[in-house]
Amino acid sequence: MKLFRFGEPGQEKAGVILNDVEYDVSAFGEDYNEQFFERNGLDRLAAYVQQNEGKLPLVPDGVRFGSAIARPSKIICIGLNYADHARETNAAIPQEPIVFFKATSALCGPNDDVVIPKNAKKLDWEVELAVVIGRKASYVSESEALDFVAGYTLHNDYSEREFQLERGGQWVKGKSNDTFAPVGPFLATPDELGDIDNLRLWLTVNGKTMQEGTTANLIFKIPFLVSYLSQFMTLLPGDMITTGTPAGVGLGMNPQVYLQEGDVVELGIEGLGSSKQIVKAYG
Amino acid sequence: MKLFRFGEPGQEKAGVILNDVEYDVSAFGEDYNEQFFERNGLDRLAAYVQQNEGKLPLVPDGVRFGSAIARPSKIICIGLNYADHARETNAAIPQEPIVFFKATSALCGPNDDVVIPKNAKKLDWEVELAVVIGRKASYVSESEALDFVAGYTLHNDYSEREFQLERGGQWVKGKSNDTFAPVGPFLATPDELGDIDNLRLWLTVNGKTMQEGTTANLIFKIPFLVSYLSQFMTLLPGDMITTGTPAGVGLGMNPQVYLQEGDVVELGIEGLGSSKQIVKAYG
Repeated sequence: MKLFRFGEPGQEKAGVILNDVEYDVSAFGEDYNEQFFERNGLDRLAAYVQQNEGKLPLVPDGVRFGSAIARPSKIICIGLNYADHARETNAAIPQEPIVFFKATSALCGPNDDVVIPKNAKKLDWEVELAVVIGRKASYVSESEALDFVAGYTLHNDYSEREFQLERGGQWVKGKSNDTFAPVGPFLATPDELGDIDNLRLWLTVNGKTMQEGTTANLIFKIPFLVSYLSQFMTLLPGDMITTGTPAGVGLGMNPQVYLQEGDVVELGIEGLGSSKQIVKAYG
Repeated sequence: MKLFRFGEPGQEKAGVILNDVEYDVSAFGEDYNEQFFERNGLDRLAAYVQQNEGKLPLVPDGVRFGSAIARPSKIICIGLNYADHARETNAAIPQEPIVFFKATSALCGPNDDVVIPKNAKKLDWEVELAVVIGRKASYVSESEALDFVAGYTLHNDYSEREFQLERGGQWVKGKSNDTFAPVGPFLATPDELGDIDNLRLWLTVNGKTMQEGTTANLIFKIPFLVSYLSQFMTLLPGDMITTGTPAGVGLGMNPQVYLQEGDVVELGIEGLGSSKQIVKAYG
């Protein structure tokens, strides 16, 4: 199943994609939030879709897509999880996952504009595979970890490099501005995807390929990440883990390249669709 | 007004304290969450309390207190914000605030047990003054910042120092385990407190004073913190900012001292009451 959300910001409705056709399932009466996942929403929604086959309303063409999931309790980010990206930023290959949070208020639709914060000069891109948690996970083993996953989605982990790296201490300052987390177009359940360890990722700026990678090169794989994180915090249904980015970010170039007003960023992951953000100045 | 929440975990009801008497205001029909603060809940609740004066039911003696606020979208922590604490941990005085997040799943009641995570050896305490946001705040100035504050509460920013400092990268791993954020006993609106820049804070372990400080020694004051953070992310109603801890944590001692099963931690802030946690092993 592929789940998406559509409509105006803050008033998104639930949708599903079946055979590339977008259906409105707002009559199901739930958003794709913590309660939905916690109360076995994926199974209940699948039953609802089957019962209503042939009767589901279509979603109008050209409608805005919201984030593929409602605002979660946490967006957990993994840093430097591709060896080529660690190298390009002159960072050591981590011995264990580097973990940081992104403010959930940064969440937005996959094709919403990304806004350069006030006083920001170093807005950068990061195509990432994101994992959405389906069941409360605390101290889960690597072998059972995938049972706690609801599905996967596409995320651009926008980063302001001066805020992140030159303003003292921790990375969160450069990861959390509004619009820094476009998520979607859709959440794909695991059965839609096949081998999650062999998905191609790409990102272009103004049509020029900047990132081109594969999840085969993840240093820490998804089952390990879910298990690892669950030792340090309880993962709640609907929480998102974004698994790191391959080489090709602006920070890693010589000279460094950062986004400017009017730039067009497009990205995608095999099986998870694509998204597109236009860079806007604040205000 | 002093607001608190009582009852079983996950089923807390709303209460208010008037002249040291605890009243049940669950009939008001709201929890102290984002919507409550966003929809001018403090004013509406004050009017409700006034209308129902003399008719409000009492809260039974001995009832459990929950976190003073419902789970917020963010718990934002300020690191090394007292000079004496920076010195004891051999850290430089920060040039600008050090910011990190604590998982909101760590939130618990002020007198709930604190649980030593599996494989943890270095559980430490941090008495802190926490600020709760009342209105959406983005790019607010220092002079207007206090208009965006709903009130203040007591927080013990529990930290596992090995997870925080010796496991690679960012601090979030040592700040986010379940029970690491006891909040309360109550949220005090600003009018209850007087001068927030001159409040005494203290913490004892097994009756021995470990921390003794005053908010007069905050390096970055509350209006500055609210304004500063709002440059990097939108602060949502109900969000909590925890402002840092004075000297006297276990990490700063020679030799270092960490909490063991059965230890009793008590802490308080002038005007904000006190809390007490008993240290339990996991499982």
